[in-house]
Amino acid sequence: MSDDLKPANLPTTGAFVRDTTYINDRVVSSLEPGSAPQGDVIGEMTWPVEAGRYRLAAARACPWAHRSVITRRLLGLEDSISLALAGPTHDKNSWTFDLDPGGVDPVLGIERLQQAYFNRIPDYPRGITVPALVDVATTSVVTNGFSKMNTDFVKEWTKLHRPGAPDLLPDEHADEIAEIDARVYPKLNNGVYRTGFAADQGPHEEAFDDVFATLDWLEERLSTRRYLVGDHITAADIRTFTTLVRFDAVYHGHFKANRNKISEMPALWGYLRDLFQTPGFGDTTDFTQIKQHYYIVHHEINPRGVIPKGPDLSGLLTPHGREELGGTPFGDGTAPGPVPTGEEVPREHSAEVGLPAR
Amino acid sequence: MSDDLKPANLPTTGAFVRDTTYINDRVVSSLEPGSAPQGDVIGEMTWPVEAGRYRLAAARACPWAHRSVITRRLLGLEDSISLALAGPTHDKNSWTFDLDPGGVDPVLGIERLQQAYFNRIPDYPRGITVPALVDVATTSVVTNGFSKMNTDFVKEWTKLHRPGAPDLLPDEHADEIAEIDARVYPKLNNGVYRTGFAADQGPHEEAFDDVFATLDWLEERLSTRRYLVGDHITAADIRTFTTLVRFDAVYHGHFKANRNKISEMPALWGYLRDLFQTPGFGDTTDFTQIKQHYYIVHHEINPRGVIPKGPDLSGLLTPHGREELGGTPFGDGTAPGPVPTGEEVPREHSAEVGLPAR
Repeated sequence: MSDDLKPANLPTTGAFVRDTTYINDRVVSSLEPGSAPQGDVIGEMTWPVEAGRYRLAAARACPWAHRSVITRRLLGLEDSISLALAGPTHDKNSWTFDLDPGGVDPVLGIERLQQAYFNRIPDYPRGITVPALVDVATTSVVTNGFSKMNTDFVKEWTKLHRPGAPDLLPDEHADEIAEIDARVYPKLNNGVYRTGFAADQGPHEEAFDDVFATLDWLEERLSTRRYLVGDHITAADIRTFTTLVRFDAVYHGHFKANRNKISEMPALWGYLRDLFQTPGFGDTTDFTQIKQHYYIVHHEINPRGVIPKGPDLSGLLTPHGREELGGTPFGDGTAPGPVPTGEEVPREHSAEVGLPAR
Repeated sequence: MSDDLKPANLPTTGAFVRDTTYINDRVVSSLEPGSAPQGDVIGEMTWPVEAGRYRLAAARACPWAHRSVITRRLLGLEDSISLALAGPTHDKNSWTFDLDPGGVDPVLGIERLQQAYFNRIPDYPRGITVPALVDVATTSVVTNGFSKMNTDFVKEWTKLHRPGAPDLLPDEHADEIAEIDARVYPKLNNGVYRTGFAADQGPHEEAFDDVFATLDWLEERLSTRRYLVGDHITAADIRTFTTLVRFDAVYHGHFKANRNKISEMPALWGYLRDLFQTPGFGDTTDFTQIKQHYYIVHHEINPRGVIPKGPDLSGLLTPHGREELGGTPFGDGTAPGPVPTGEEVPREHSAEVGLPAR
């Protein structure tokens, strides 16, 4: 998702309201690989699960895209769904592939993700967001609905999961995971944006209170349990992680969510470190791109584009002691292997925030 | 002092360079009370020490003015030098008395401090800064040189000091205090401004490194001694305090000095709490005005003027344990009495940052 590619949403007065209308096509296991998409209405069509057919357009910076990158990696879908990484500092209209040689994504052959949206819907009027799943043959966006996309990775793409892939949405915990999302999404994931993008004092303070009430609630919940739901990592943890890991680095200062840092909340800080040190989480986190994105793109709140040199994030790799709470990260499953060649976060980006190369 | 009433200094590119040219008239004990100022050149004239003759124009927000307010209070000069408090959010040209009834300082009879500068120097071309010592009879600025002003409070105003006033500039430590100032002033007191006002990445990072190298040096120095110089509070502590107390509240986020907070540095955090809990320091600190000033006035770096609701500063009143290091705050002297009526920091301003009324 992008936070400011929807000009109508960035207020000059009042509160920030996120546009949550997406192209919600689905990728489903019930269609044969190679078959044409089914349906007539864009946003309600279905496409077949198929190795090599789609490319996931993401950006390291974006917390919503980060969810998809983590989910893909934990499930071992890297060989089946390739990854296009846009640079951190998109322009006014689109995320761009400015980090690729020649500024062109080597598979999609486009400079700007916007083109894949226009190929699907000419004059597409909404924000050009990541994550977006792109049909490689037609270079057109299948879906940018990050929530359903990730659910489909878990529930529909099972044939292509790696051996040992964890169940990130176990049926017995589905209701609890949904309940948590119903709170964490508006109050925390999007709450930090509302805190930072508010153009007036009142909406800022309301959002600020939402954020910290939610963090306090999570702090208490996580003081006696290693993961948010059940005994293993689920989608609820992934959704929370991508906000927590950006919190001290960006949201605390840039978005003014500054009652305290995550590192000042013992259970959350332990939980964040635990996940960060788990394959799939820290190894997909690029703090340099995260900082560049927020501080450079949001000229409305940081007009000079200067990026704070801090914070020192070396504490993320310190022992967390969370094993004592019981539970295991992947249950009956296993951890994913190494990050695929070419998808590693640059070593110098880790060094810049005080982290050793991983 | 003001950080942005000197338009030529707020860069659109490169580094921030503070204008350090002041009206450096002196107030001295060698002239008889009631006598006319001596000398012909503004900035090199001398005025007599005299109770009731001058009014100190300050603002709670400003760290340079805060030094004078603390010094005046520790020395018991409140009865001899009255206090005019400008509001936190000066306009483009001047600090103003917008908090006073009718927006007029009740003693000076002016709305804008600028008028007292113009009365001294018509068309005064520099920044309208606080602290400024104003001759009440002529409503004109005697000096805005905060450094010499404070030294004169200590060295020249001795006849009017309260019984038990501490020696803030003991002769035997004069060199050491000057040495510390030569480092703390450019690298920390002004270093935070350079960190936050830098218009380019390079100057930001250079200033950032200055700030944290200085904090690391202070952290080490203060790990084995209660105060910076000798065994009691000196001017060196006052100069350092007014920056440290603003650090987590403003400089860490607003000025991007975010390697870490002061509360994350054990010796400095203890030192800051120790001073904050000492009469003259915390009781002259108004976090609400401090936050309003920086976040509202600096539209170049915070264009929307939204003030972060945080941080939670309640930790400032927790036990610090610094007594174990030896030393006493006021040596052979005593603590000042209560804050004079009418000069108290409003109770609700303390409550807003998590502090009980004091």
